[in-house]
Amino acid sequence: MATVYGIGVGPGDPELLTLKGLRLLRACPVIAYPAPETGDSLARKIAAPHLSSDKIEIAIRMPLLADRFPAQEVYAKAAAEIGGHLAAGRDVAVLCLGDPFFYGSFMYLFARLAAAHEVVVVPGVTSVSAAAAALGAPMVARNETLAVIPAPLPDAEIECRLAQADAAAIVKLGRHFARVRELLVRLGLASAARYVEHASMTTERTPSLAEVDPAAVPYFSLILVRRQRSPS
Amino acid sequence: MATVYGIGVGPGDPELLTLKGLRLLRACPVIAYPAPETGDSLARKIAAPHLSSDKIEIAIRMPLLADRFPAQEVYAKAAAEIGGHLAAGRDVAVLCLGDPFFYGSFMYLFARLAAAHEVVVVPGVTSVSAAAAALGAPMVARNETLAVIPAPLPDAEIECRLAQADAAAIVKLGRHFARVRELLVRLGLASAARYVEHASMTTERTPSLAEVDPAAVPYFSLILVRRQRSPS
Repeated sequence: MATVYGIGVGPGDPELLTLKGLRLLRACPVIAYPAPETGDSLARKIAAPHLSSDKIEIAIRMPLLADRFPAQEVYAKAAAEIGGHLAAGRDVAVLCLGDPFFYGSFMYLFARLAAAHEVVVVPGVTSVSAAAAALGAPMVARNETLAVIPAPLPDAEIECRLAQADAAAIVKLGRHFARVRELLVRLGLASAARYVEHASMTTERTPSLAEVDPAAVPYFSLILVRRQRSPS
Repeated sequence: MATVYGIGVGPGDPELLTLKGLRLLRACPVIAYPAPETGDSLARKIAAPHLSSDKIEIAIRMPLLADRFPAQEVYAKAAAEIGGHLAAGRDVAVLCLGDPFFYGSFMYLFARLAAAHEVVVVPGVTSVSAAAAALGAPMVARNETLAVIPAPLPDAEIECRLAQADAAAIVKLGRHFARVRELLVRLGLASAARYVEHASMTTERTPSLAEVDPAAVPYFSLILVRRQRSPS
């Protein structure tokens, strides 16, 4: 029975792929990956150094729909195409940025394929771990709690989670940056917060919060917050 | 100038090491790793398939002190030994379970070495990502929030964080399992909670909450909770 592998290719640096991801990527005759409506796929770009030219490739192209969750029909069509390869006995590797089950679009395929097919998930390094490494700043230690908070949530929802957490990762910043920065300043957390853009990619940047131009903040950016307790 | 690398070796499966971790592990003449007072180091065991026999090895042996955070003097001594190798021009790889900055003991060395030495952190796959993969269960999607909560915290602290989170990872279960399970039942979350032991290791198990023997729950176990919202 053929298998579909959801492979976390990590946060951006092709070297942050796991050995297991690499082995399966090489072994699968078919690869699928999310891609924009036109242009290159970031997940494919991360895997590119490891891809041979004989792969069957499925680009899952998502129309640009601001503020809407991805079109279900795109995933239905991709799942059907992947299912066809599986039925023909061909293993399929689905490339996923970061970790497939941590805000990954792989979940939409998983929901459609898991009932009828063998699905294996290969976990990957998240952008949150890569951001902490980029900053040289511990995320959580000992019995500290961590909150992972998507920036598109309303201020009140972000605020109540920040109030309870020793540390936080505010993800999916993009055009929400200015609002989140204001909130952090108001809560007295600006000095405990650090910004990371494109963690582990060649375009990685870690400017101070004050230096960031809100108009130029990409989707792949996040803020790590850690309250000061003990020095270590 | 020599460099100390904090290398996340991942959650247990030696294949979940990253390509970057592997390259640096092979390149460094000195490796250091946490170890119990007597016996084998789990971090070293994960890296073992990739280690040559000519490495200088530093086992950072931690006395078993229940309910106390690791003895500062052990880390001070290890940092001094590592510092000696760096001063002599030898790069050092410190092996860290999971991700070095996500509840990793590497932070204690980092605090002592970062001021005087070049320190580079290589992020790794966390046990939380490995647990979701083991369960075949998405952790967080869309704008859901995630709380990572250490089980040794008091019930009230766990409860208030669970109340706010769409999804949660309750880590460091060990002897706290029975108390946490009771709490989840009381909060009506038992059916949304799944247990994973030794995620990605050969000893991985995913019994139902009810089946778990509280007396046999290891430190490397966790519970993932995800409230049911939409089906995908």
